[in-house]
Amino acid sequence: MIVNVRGRPRHFRTVTFDATQNAVLLIEQRLLPHKFEIVAIPNFRATAQSIHDMVVRGAGAIGATAAYGLAQGLRAFRGRDLSRFNAHAETVYQTLKSARPTAVDPVNAMNQVRAAMTPGETVAEQQSLALAAAEQFANEDVQHCEAIGRHGAKLIRNGMNVLTHCNAGWLAFVDVGSATAPMYAAQKKGTKFHVFCDETRPRSQGATLTAWELAQQKISHQIIADNAAGHLMQRGKIDLVIVGSDRTLGRTGEVANKIGTYTKAVLAARHGIPFYVAIPLSTIDWNIKSGMDIPIETRDESEVLGAWGLVHTPNSKLRPLTSDLRPPTSDRRHYVRVANPGSSAYNPGFDVTPADLITGIITPAGIVKPKDLWHRRRTLGRN
Amino acid sequence: MIVNVRGRPRHFRTVTFDATQNAVLLIEQRLLPHKFEIVAIPNFRATAQSIHDMVVRGAGAIGATAAYGLAQGLRAFRGRDLSRFNAHAETVYQTLKSARPTAVDPVNAMNQVRAAMTPGETVAEQQSLALAAAEQFANEDVQHCEAIGRHGAKLIRNGMNVLTHCNAGWLAFVDVGSATAPMYAAQKKGTKFHVFCDETRPRSQGATLTAWELAQQKISHQIIADNAAGHLMQRGKIDLVIVGSDRTLGRTGEVANKIGTYTKAVLAARHGIPFYVAIPLSTIDWNIKSGMDIPIETRDESEVLGAWGLVHTPNSKLRPLTSDLRPPTSDRRHYVRVANPGSSAYNPGFDVTPADLITGIITPAGIVKPKDLWHRRRTLGRN
Repeated sequence: MIVNVRGRPRHFRTVTFDATQNAVLLIEQRLLPHKFEIVAIPNFRATAQSIHDMVVRGAGAIGATAAYGLAQGLRAFRGRDLSRFNAHAETVYQTLKSARPTAVDPVNAMNQVRAAMTPGETVAEQQSLALAAAEQFANEDVQHCEAIGRHGAKLIRNGMNVLTHCNAGWLAFVDVGSATAPMYAAQKKGTKFHVFCDETRPRSQGATLTAWELAQQKISHQIIADNAAGHLMQRGKIDLVIVGSDRTLGRTGEVANKIGTYTKAVLAARHGIPFYVAIPLSTIDWNIKSGMDIPIETRDESEVLGAWGLVHTPNSKLRPLTSDLRPPTSDRRHYVRVANPGSSAYNPGFDVTPADLITGIITPAGIVKPKDLWHRRRTLGRN
Repeated sequence: MIVNVRGRPRHFRTVTFDATQNAVLLIEQRLLPHKFEIVAIPNFRATAQSIHDMVVRGAGAIGATAAYGLAQGLRAFRGRDLSRFNAHAETVYQTLKSARPTAVDPVNAMNQVRAAMTPGETVAEQQSLALAAAEQFANEDVQHCEAIGRHGAKLIRNGMNVLTHCNAGWLAFVDVGSATAPMYAAQKKGTKFHVFCDETRPRSQGATLTAWELAQQKISHQIIADNAAGHLMQRGKIDLVIVGSDRTLGRTGEVANKIGTYTKAVLAARHGIPFYVAIPLSTIDWNIKSGMDIPIETRDESEVLGAWGLVHTPNSKLRPLTSDLRPPTSDRRHYVRVANPGSSAYNPGFDVTPADLITGIITPAGIVKPKDLWHRRRTLGRN
């Protein structure tokens, strides 16, 4: 999507590959929204580290990064011995896989690359096929998001106010995003609308990443406290809700997503406001039989007890604290302790929204009622 | 209530008066939860400034502060001329009234003091009656909160998890508080329960003030992101909700309170969890006919775009940035900008919860169904 670099709009993808340098190029997401920087990751071990350290995050984005990382590692192999090459390939694969052990996308993406390279008869052929497969994986991720956008754009009409939660934007994919895809497609058609971004405490992905994306795209938007959406709905100021999903149950239509999503679905139902979930097909879990069986990660309490941001002193402009950046680096924003020092916090990371609160699931294959996912499983990619 | 000063529990009120010094003593609330400090406010103009600068906030607390401030101003008068004394009294009254022009509590409190001093035949007598009336106002505020506690404590049973939003604690009153009163009374009876404090973005009164109060009182509690309550309710982890109110409509039973209260009421109703609002009678508005007519203050967007806290550097302990405090001083915590710098925010401060979502209103005169407020208006203090 578009990023305004020194006032000039330029097109970027979240993840790309520089074949000359044999480097994976990533947007350093930990610096956003305060600094936009592309980092060149020079080798597969550093690429695995970048996934681990969340330089890049989001299902589609880490899938593509792992696919490119596998090709990168294979292309660094010198020699013609196929059995030594295969042993090396296994090392690269395992290194990238272990970067985010619970994530399924890197594994699926790398399996696709491995299957595509098998026909190659020489090391050079296999290296070449691996990179082509990684490129194809990334391109398909973009195409799926574009398809979500085409289907979802019909829901957004002139003058609407759209609410979204967390970030299911292009930064979480190779490009375009899931929950944001209908917005970007509607904008292309010339539809005028306004977006309310839930701040999305405790990590504030709405206030940081989604707001940054929409600002770059010049889409009219405002950030609201997570507490404010109910009031806005009550006063008729929200017409449509679109969110993403970390895991959607193909058997029940339940949706696991960032903590707070369920609350917005309950509020939307009370006010008769359509509530949509936008997902790529890879997000659908065809096995789990109940939302109560989805493990809900309890995250560190420091997220709730404080906030990360740039220190703002009254007599200075906002000053990014990122000048000593070396990729991959740690987050240079400051953490402030907000809460009472003697108190602890409970910090569940996700919640589960039942199917009856969801108007529709926007997939690359069209908009589906959550209860119809299982019925339509053949067209929705279940093997 | 109790504050642990250097490990020792001591009893404090939010507002008291030192007759020897002719000073109003206030807990400096802007330093909480990071520093506990009592400041002696030396004259009525400084007392007005303390109300204005929010050294003290909350309906009962600013009422008592204004009552004491009026007595303080009158006691500073030298001479015996009653007509000059009365002119001075008017100056003091207007100065304190203008400190928070939209608040009704300081005016009601000062009117009570003025009515009580009228029988005095000399300046000295009127000065003495004024101070006695201010003391009485403060004591009655405490008694009302204790009565709320007695009625509300019956709702809290052993093993319960109680959710509260924002701060309607003793810091907002002279002592005991409204929403917290049932908790403190239940604790006294030996009831074991756990409190979840909503963080209450954007100003985080739950994470700072309520959590601090509960920690001092040694009540088991955890802070949660405002996004988390829906998930906790869904998993059966919340049994009761108690919140305060800024304005309760006597004619309809609607409750205006901190933004996010309405959301919690909607969630509680979905899960069949009792939702109570604890209020002193002074909070009831007998005139307004609809919640839609309550003006909702839109506050500065900086509250949503950032957070206030103590800067935490990895190699240091939490360091209070308050060493150069002189009362009344400004807030010495640091503000960090969290949100995307190019984005703006919308920040409504309050919302309105309809009567059908409220199980009961806990008043000093007992627990009342919201729809019965009007019917019982004679016993609930409507003149």
